[in-house]
Amino acid sequence: MQYYSRAELIEKMKEIALLHGDFTLRSGKKSSWYFDKYRFEGIPGILRSVAHHMSRLVPEGVNRLAGIELGGIPLATALALETDLPAIFIRKGAKDYGTEKQIEGVHNPGDQILVVEDVVTTGGQAIILINQLREQGLNIVGCLAVLNREEGSIEAFGEANIPFWWLFSREDFGF
Amino acid sequence: MQYYSRAELIEKMKEIALLHGDFTLRSGKKSSWYFDKYRFEGIPGILRSVAHHMSRLVPEGVNRLAGIELGGIPLATALALETDLPAIFIRKGAKDYGTEKQIEGVHNPGDQILVVEDVVTTGGQAIILINQLREQGLNIVGCLAVLNREEGSIEAFGEANIPFWWLFSREDFGF
Repeated sequence: MQYYSRAELIEKMKEIALLHGDFTLRSGKKSSWYFDKYRFEGIPGILRSVAHHMSRLVPEGVNRLAGIELGGIPLATALALETDLPAIFIRKGAKDYGTEKQIEGVHNPGDQILVVEDVVTTGGQAIILINQLREQGLNIVGCLAVLNREEGSIEAFGEANIPFWWLFSREDFGF
Repeated sequence: MQYYSRAELIEKMKEIALLHGDFTLRSGKKSSWYFDKYRFEGIPGILRSVAHHMSRLVPEGVNRLAGIELGGIPLATALALETDLPAIFIRKGAKDYGTEKQIEGVHNPGDQILVVEDVVTTGGQAIILINQLREQGLNIVGCLAVLNREEGSIEAFGEANIPFWWLFSREDFGF
């Protein structure tokens, strides 16, 4: 399998997924740039290479991945296929039919679970969800993001006592 | 890459994802069995093999896949990685931040798009979404499901004039 190098990957991702304009981020912050992760997650060659480079950052001992809807789901899937680690899928709310769960998929007590995220800005939403998962008894090792926009995220994860890793920093994308 | 045969795959999927009990399906129907797709979608060896067998059913001319949230997203991702076809991701509603779209990812006029679904029962929800996508100008070639529960789905897709394919029928799972 051929993978893009880290430098090639940054160029490819910027080309396809970096948008300029006036955006309101999930955190409520305004921004002149928006990294539309779906635009790269849908391109197999890019997604495969992102998963490949992320796989090197998976901490030892992790035996399950968790993807947060919606943007974390293709990433967790691709990283699972790359590493052969199983994955669970996390909803922001519970659904109202069938088996009605926030946490979808198989998990077991004692699992060492790594949350996979797309773009982290302040970290706010990921931290809320990880705390919810911990309250439900899941052992969350930490959070691995594709892009850390570094707008308070490092401090917030530190205060929440959640280890945090990322593949690309905002500097990697020229901001 | 090693793949499970079709027969092995059915056994693996039944073992991990077939639940017995009292369930209310998305269609509102009651059922004594529920096929919890997330339980197999999170297992890389199974998901990879499902995508492999589904790849043979992708109609000629299709140049883009579409996964419907949430269960269709890991499938569309895995099928994209298997076939090298790009994917888009379909929300059931629009989000309220960033770029605010029901259709996430890159698509172009003239694309021949195949919708990838997990479990289809009556077909109702998939048909509503596909009609919404068609109204927005997308050229949807049809729908490919992992499991067709065949509770009105074939008739409903026929009436809606949407070609419909599936990897496994309910008989394959012993119902």
